[in-house]
Amino acid sequence: MPQRQRAHFINSLSGFKSANLIATQDLCGNTNLAIFSSVVHFGASPPLVGLIMRPNNGNRHTLDNILNKSLFTINQVSVGHYQQAHQTSAAYTKNECEFKSVGLNKEYLEGIDVPFVKESQLRYAVQLKDVLPITHNNTQLILGEIIHVCCNSNAIKADGYIDIESLETVTVSGLDSYHITQRLSRLAYAKPNQKCDVLSDVI
Amino acid sequence: MPQRQRAHFINSLSGFKSANLIATQDLCGNTNLAIFSSVVHFGASPPLVGLIMRPNNGNRHTLDNILNKSLFTINQVSVGHYQQAHQTSAAYTKNECEFKSVGLNKEYLEGIDVPFVKESQLRYAVQLKDVLPITHNNTQLILGEIIHVCCNSNAIKADGYIDIESLETVTVSGLDSYHITQRLSRLAYAKPNQKCDVLSDVI
Repeated sequence: MPQRQRAHFINSLSGFKSANLIATQDLCGNTNLAIFSSVVHFGASPPLVGLIMRPNNGNRHTLDNILNKSLFTINQVSVGHYQQAHQTSAAYTKNECEFKSVGLNKEYLEGIDVPFVKESQLRYAVQLKDVLPITHNNTQLILGEIIHVCCNSNAIKADGYIDIESLETVTVSGLDSYHITQRLSRLAYAKPNQKCDVLSDVI
Repeated sequence: MPQRQRAHFINSLSGFKSANLIATQDLCGNTNLAIFSSVVHFGASPPLVGLIMRPNNGNRHTLDNILNKSLFTINQVSVGHYQQAHQTSAAYTKNECEFKSVGLNKEYLEGIDVPFVKESQLRYAVQLKDVLPITHNNTQLILGEIIHVCCNSNAIKADGYIDIESLETVTVSGLDSYHITQRLSRLAYAKPNQKCDVLSDVI
């Protein structure tokens, strides 16, 4: 397969992916914003997330800023701004501000020296913990600890689950397809030799 | 937060996740099947996927089999079998076969000595490439190379994109919520100073 066709094909195989904007800032105060579909949950205790940095300078500005400040924010992408979020993947120069270029707004919280995306309904600050080189394809796995979460409390259910569908969070397939979701059901904690139970009262 | 509530909360933060069944086989021919929401695309060339193994023996049988055979299959979960897929997360003993216990069927392809899930519409065999320890929480990142893909050709578009929504692939949020999707649009490759274009003719 030609390179681009192969990229579409292989990117589709893992299934639906998360859509998040990574916001960073350099030591001079210049900000950067980039969409990632590789943010993945690594563990709840400590609360760890990972994301994959491509080689060939694909995410150079984001990576430089993360390494310099050891702090970044992750902002879930929702229906209202998914097109602006996708546009951050364009090859802007270091001096161009993606926030301004794509039409999204910065918001700062006290004590956190990197911006959040104002339009995002679920966002959090992450402290860099580790950078693991993946030698097989020169990518890097960025590992960080979640230190501050901002989310509308209506979306947080009694058992801790966050109803990200109610926040209109989108999901990605392949390189460029964006989707909203419709819940089938939540399912009870599975036990051997017991039928799978639908949780009907939690949402 | 109590441990379980915290797990629900933190698991929701990364956004929508993939839903995949990992099928493995030990050296005696005993098979294992387990649902994972942590399968993530690592790169197209070479075609690499990763998945995260929990500590505390959570995925012990799957991990043992992968390490012993260096081969496993990844099978996307779709609407028709998501409840059976969830049920594989129950703590079955090593001698219980999850395929049989949850009511899913094995299928073997010539030359590949691990089973596929017959009910899955998009599935592939993966050769183990690396196991990276994540020391911060005792998880392990399993990296593998995709060596053989089975997918209905109707779902594969001219540009290589696979329409996994047409295959009714589901997505997961938090620990236990399953969702179908509805496409908003595919978006053109983004370029600076050019409006984001909707690709209307590719699906």
